[in-house]
Amino acid sequence: MSVVQRAPAHIRAISPYVPGKPVGELARELGLDAAGIVKLASNENPSGMSPRARAAVAAALEDSARYPDGSGFELKQVLATRLGVEQASLLLGNGSNDILELVARTFLGPETSAVYAQYAFAVYALAVKAVGARGIEVPARAWGHDLAAMADAITTDTRVVFIANPNNPTGSFLPAHLLEAFLMRMPAHVLVVLDEAYNEYLPPALRYDSLSWLAQFQNLLVVRTMSKIHGLAGLRVGYAVGSPAVVDLLDRVRQPFNVNSLAQAAAAAALEDEEFVRRSHELNRAGMAQILSGLRELNLESIPSQANFISFRVGDAAAVNRSLLQQGVIVRPLSSYGMPEWLRVSIGLSAENTRFLEALAVALKG
Amino acid sequence: MSVVQRAPAHIRAISPYVPGKPVGELARELGLDAAGIVKLASNENPSGMSPRARAAVAAALEDSARYPDGSGFELKQVLATRLGVEQASLLLGNGSNDILELVARTFLGPETSAVYAQYAFAVYALAVKAVGARGIEVPARAWGHDLAAMADAITTDTRVVFIANPNNPTGSFLPAHLLEAFLMRMPAHVLVVLDEAYNEYLPPALRYDSLSWLAQFQNLLVVRTMSKIHGLAGLRVGYAVGSPAVVDLLDRVRQPFNVNSLAQAAAAAALEDEEFVRRSHELNRAGMAQILSGLRELNLESIPSQANFISFRVGDAAAVNRSLLQQGVIVRPLSSYGMPEWLRVSIGLSAENTRFLEALAVALKG
Repeated sequence: MSVVQRAPAHIRAISPYVPGKPVGELARELGLDAAGIVKLASNENPSGMSPRARAAVAAALEDSARYPDGSGFELKQVLATRLGVEQASLLLGNGSNDILELVARTFLGPETSAVYAQYAFAVYALAVKAVGARGIEVPARAWGHDLAAMADAITTDTRVVFIANPNNPTGSFLPAHLLEAFLMRMPAHVLVVLDEAYNEYLPPALRYDSLSWLAQFQNLLVVRTMSKIHGLAGLRVGYAVGSPAVVDLLDRVRQPFNVNSLAQAAAAAALEDEEFVRRSHELNRAGMAQILSGLRELNLESIPSQANFISFRVGDAAAVNRSLLQQGVIVRPLSSYGMPEWLRVSIGLSAENTRFLEALAVALKG
Repeated sequence: MSVVQRAPAHIRAISPYVPGKPVGELARELGLDAAGIVKLASNENPSGMSPRARAAVAAALEDSARYPDGSGFELKQVLATRLGVEQASLLLGNGSNDILELVARTFLGPETSAVYAQYAFAVYALAVKAVGARGIEVPARAWGHDLAAMADAITTDTRVVFIANPNNPTGSFLPAHLLEAFLMRMPAHVLVVLDEAYNEYLPPALRYDSLSWLAQFQNLLVVRTMSKIHGLAGLRVGYAVGSPAVVDLLDRVRQPFNVNSLAQAAAAAALEDEEFVRRSHELNRAGMAQILSGLRELNLESIPSQANFISFRVGDAAAVNRSLLQQGVIVRPLSSYGMPEWLRVSIGLSAENTRFLEALAVALKG
């Protein structure tokens, strides 16, 4: 038997994560001009990157034949100051995806389980299965996490619960009091991973301070990303805040140079650019209104979203998606989430949103 | 019990990789001026980065709020053309470190073992232990891999053998005929990972074509890095070439966006800059002669090296290292490799090599 055939069954069973189709790939496949393609498939920031982050990358390039600072000292210093936490509570990842995988590799393995919700971000199940642990998927309620059912689903071998707030791809949101009540119910041997990738898009009235819960709950790990409102998806930076004991263990499993030099520099600068974040938030609010109004005009059902995307029901989503692609518009089909009638669109620039709505109208006429 | 206490024993036992001390860290610790510090601790390219790679990063920055191309199409296309292989034989990593870990996570686990040599690159043992597999360390011969003993050490549960050629930190080299004979002896259920991180530094007379062996040996995986002669350590790109079945499985375990956009662009450009590689090779040859001559003048024993560093014996290496640090010179102590009397110095620019040799003379007078 070959080494491939002898690989563990849970490895051979992995179907990799399917990312949003890159513009270049669609251009190659359909012979389209890349410049005319609108990508609203990966919940990226349509404004691009903060100018301060760009300048920081240019400066850091000078020294990039050197290995990155594996400890991430300067980026952690910015985070520590802004968040009011110690450096020992901070973990850096090659995107928050890296952190989700580190959690699985550190705390899970055969004969353990992890709990997550139906329709929750696909990487949870992938990371759990890649380490041979059992994934317990708890049915959703109104497209969102059913926290009571999730708490009930915990077993003695459960080590991790993943909660996305807001959730991708449904955009559903859990208010602070429900999260706090959930944390109260969690035993100490279960790590609660609160994935706040889209947190910065919340309207002011819904915001909450999850970091303030860390003093009380040593088993809480708050995970965030620089890929969304901060506009650094291409650079791969995520971070987590947790108790020093949890962070220390994750840090031992982390690759020593997981976050590259340019990414560290860009992230430190992007965090300081509050004006860029403010404008991105406003752009998203306006774009969400534009798309919601367009979807309503087309009489399409959608799921209320607190993030920078919205999922909507079109029936034969595969056919509609094919038509959109042929028109040079990339959105995300959700069949892999068990939502074969749905598509997810990221909020873009006003002109991109218009392009999408027009193409969608054409696609629906089919 | 907390989630940390319940983490697997092999996770709690991990001591992380200790990288070369960053310049900024030494400057902070000793209150030194960073500009006056010479770092010869991480086998980086002292010439910096190819100008073509820098230009490619600047261009790619334009689109870096988008996720990277997770398939790495354009970088793989450059590699496929230059190496004469199919894209399906190529795997990209966040540095070759990422690839070494992917091998461990894909093919190893509890109740399996991996074979590597004494004094071999530290990441092999770390990656093996992080997945709960058993590491079989085979005693070195003349500071190098003893391939016959390594072949004998294979057991029925062995899934991976790691070979570094040249090896870090000893610089030892295995000629092609020994590697071929070793591959002949390997059963199909053992993946042979041939780590060629320093391969481009070989003198022409010692070069060999490991990729030509892939047709015959489906269980060979050749691993290379862009961090050394290509000068991209800060950007994190490594790659592997192997049989499509092996690469496919590794690719499923890989994080979808493990290599960031700027790194992909830089690597594609750096691979094409043959002039930069040629000059870096020549600089290294001259610098190696300079340092060897200096070490001889100081009557220090050293291990013949075919790479861009050399390890030398100073007796109380901890004391000598302390003195070097106080003089603003960073080299690498090898106590974690079981070589407490040795230090490893990377070949630098001529003036850096002189600084190092002068500081070493002072340190030895101690």
